[in-house]
Amino acid sequence: MRWTTTITKKLGITFPIIQAPMAGGATTPELVAAVSNAGGLGSLGAGYMTAQDIKKAIVKIRSLTNKPFAVNLFIPTAHYATEEQIQKMCQLIEINCRELNLTMHAIKSPYVPSFEEQMKVVIDEKIPVFSFTFGTLDASFIAKLKNQGTILIGTATHHSEAIALEKNGVDCIVAQGSEAGGHRGTFIGKTEDALIDVASLTSQLIDCITIPVIAAGGIMLAKNITAALALGAAGVQMGTAFLSCHESGIHFKYKEALLQATQNDTLLTRVFSGRMARGLTNKFIARMQPYNNSILDYPIQNALTRIMRQEAAKQNNNDFMSMWAGQSAYLCKSYSVAELMKKLTD
Amino acid sequence: MRWTTTITKKLGITFPIIQAPMAGGATTPELVAAVSNAGGLGSLGAGYMTAQDIKKAIVKIRSLTNKPFAVNLFIPTAHYATEEQIQKMCQLIEINCRELNLTMHAIKSPYVPSFEEQMKVVIDEKIPVFSFTFGTLDASFIAKLKNQGTILIGTATHHSEAIALEKNGVDCIVAQGSEAGGHRGTFIGKTEDALIDVASLTSQLIDCITIPVIAAGGIMLAKNITAALALGAAGVQMGTAFLSCHESGIHFKYKEALLQATQNDTLLTRVFSGRMARGLTNKFIARMQPYNNSILDYPIQNALTRIMRQEAAKQNNNDFMSMWAGQSAYLCKSYSVAELMKKLTD
Repeated sequence: MRWTTTITKKLGITFPIIQAPMAGGATTPELVAAVSNAGGLGSLGAGYMTAQDIKKAIVKIRSLTNKPFAVNLFIPTAHYATEEQIQKMCQLIEINCRELNLTMHAIKSPYVPSFEEQMKVVIDEKIPVFSFTFGTLDASFIAKLKNQGTILIGTATHHSEAIALEKNGVDCIVAQGSEAGGHRGTFIGKTEDALIDVASLTSQLIDCITIPVIAAGGIMLAKNITAALALGAAGVQMGTAFLSCHESGIHFKYKEALLQATQNDTLLTRVFSGRMARGLTNKFIARMQPYNNSILDYPIQNALTRIMRQEAAKQNNNDFMSMWAGQSAYLCKSYSVAELMKKLTD
Repeated sequence: MRWTTTITKKLGITFPIIQAPMAGGATTPELVAAVSNAGGLGSLGAGYMTAQDIKKAIVKIRSLTNKPFAVNLFIPTAHYATEEQIQKMCQLIEINCRELNLTMHAIKSPYVPSFEEQMKVVIDEKIPVFSFTFGTLDASFIAKLKNQGTILIGTATHHSEAIALEKNGVDCIVAQGSEAGGHRGTFIGKTEDALIDVASLTSQLIDCITIPVIAAGGIMLAKNITAALALGAAGVQMGTAFLSCHESGIHFKYKEALLQATQNDTLLTRVFSGRMARGLTNKFIARMQPYNNSILDYPIQNALTRIMRQEAAKQNNNDFMSMWAGQSAYLCKSYSVAELMKKLTD
């Protein structure tokens, strides 16, 4: 059984492939269930969802599959901005809103759904796998989840984080390489100091923790999985390859951009959300580059750019959408999940 | 024969392992010959050597092995600085020289040995393999070398460079990942835009050229070679792992620093030579960080820091030496070349 690893057994899946939990609409219940039905682990990226919406999505996933799946949340992080800083950023964003005939308005906290309420659903629903990023999880949540048999997956971008997560009590750790699309999970030290390629990071983590390591970042093809397993990874987590699948919920202009991407179309930026993330370049990113020092903390920046992003989506204008994608987005194909999983495992 | 690849056949070697050509004294004839005798391809890093010294080294290598070996040179690159800029940099370097009780003095061009004379030796000596970095090679040299059966290896940090090198007529290309130690080989576009991890870069190159790709950067262990070959590389080029070998000619304080390195001890800097390079952090790098915008073009900066580096070496003071090393330097061991090669290929 060439695909059997410590995580296939732990997670009860056939192939050591986890579909990355991508918040922001990509991970529809249809996508999650299709991955799990194909023998991988589907993951609901629920970071931006309200407790109620998470519950609905879980019910829907369960109606589509009886296989294990994961739900992923963002650990809340400290953030602060003065009224003046917020005003200044609103003005900068407004310039872009004008091109969309949109009036910018101030945003009040809370900037994100309640984490306590999100966690209540995760616990009440007794989901098979819970994954998280941006930090460690409160011990009381860890205890409750372990108690009911939920498998826990943390996210590390540096070996110091992996050590902290192992102590925290997770069952396995995603090694998020610098190639990965979307938000950096860094929670110890500076994000800039934790931009390590997935092969090196995987090796570093294996050398300092005893729980299984899941390689993430730039993994698009079967050969990348073979290489990751050769380095000692117990499996892989893949986001971008699933983004362009038929079941993915992203905007068609975003999907188009992925399918047309060339080798050097992604970069790391804070301009959309305040947290560093890798995505396809576009007009908003280029235009905001000079104001890099004025970008507000996540999730304040994220809340401020939201109405622009939403209106851009309505107008099918990807100049002002965030289009998160990994460094190898240029390898995206228009597959169904079943087709992609077959390509990866044949 | 699991080790047979397109490059083992092309280069006449047993294992698809090239010892990276590290200029600056590491690649003694003993090191080069030991690698070739162990079934890899030893490489003389001759970038800073005079024609006369290169000739002597080649004679010595040939006295130690009858296996193929490579000589590597730096393609000359445009450089310019005003007298005022040079004065300013001399003052900055002088602050460090004082700690070594050394008087800084101005340096006149030529800053590097004559490339024409270096090439004359390479051609006259009919060496088996010639590798180069920092650019493409003049067509007349390519023709002469090919004519006499010398195999040519170019260095790329970006797929645009690989395409240029394939057109240039090289036989294979080293994909220099961002993890690699020493100087970045970038010669098209900005160095900052060509910091791609070795796995992604290898895949990108394979997708756009037809000649064999050799993976370089962060490769320290047998499992890294397996992973690179799984991705489609025809072989690997390894520098740092050989730096700490007994046969390597680096200063004992540099070797000590390699053997004591931890996971995050390397960084990319221009302060020593003017060209971006990865090495172990030290006092000089930290101190020069604020003056990043005043760093002069390679090789002017390199020439200006030379007397400081040489005096630091004499005083066994690694605060002011350049200690180039790849991102996975923390895996360095004190082996003989034969022991290392056995570990890699057993």
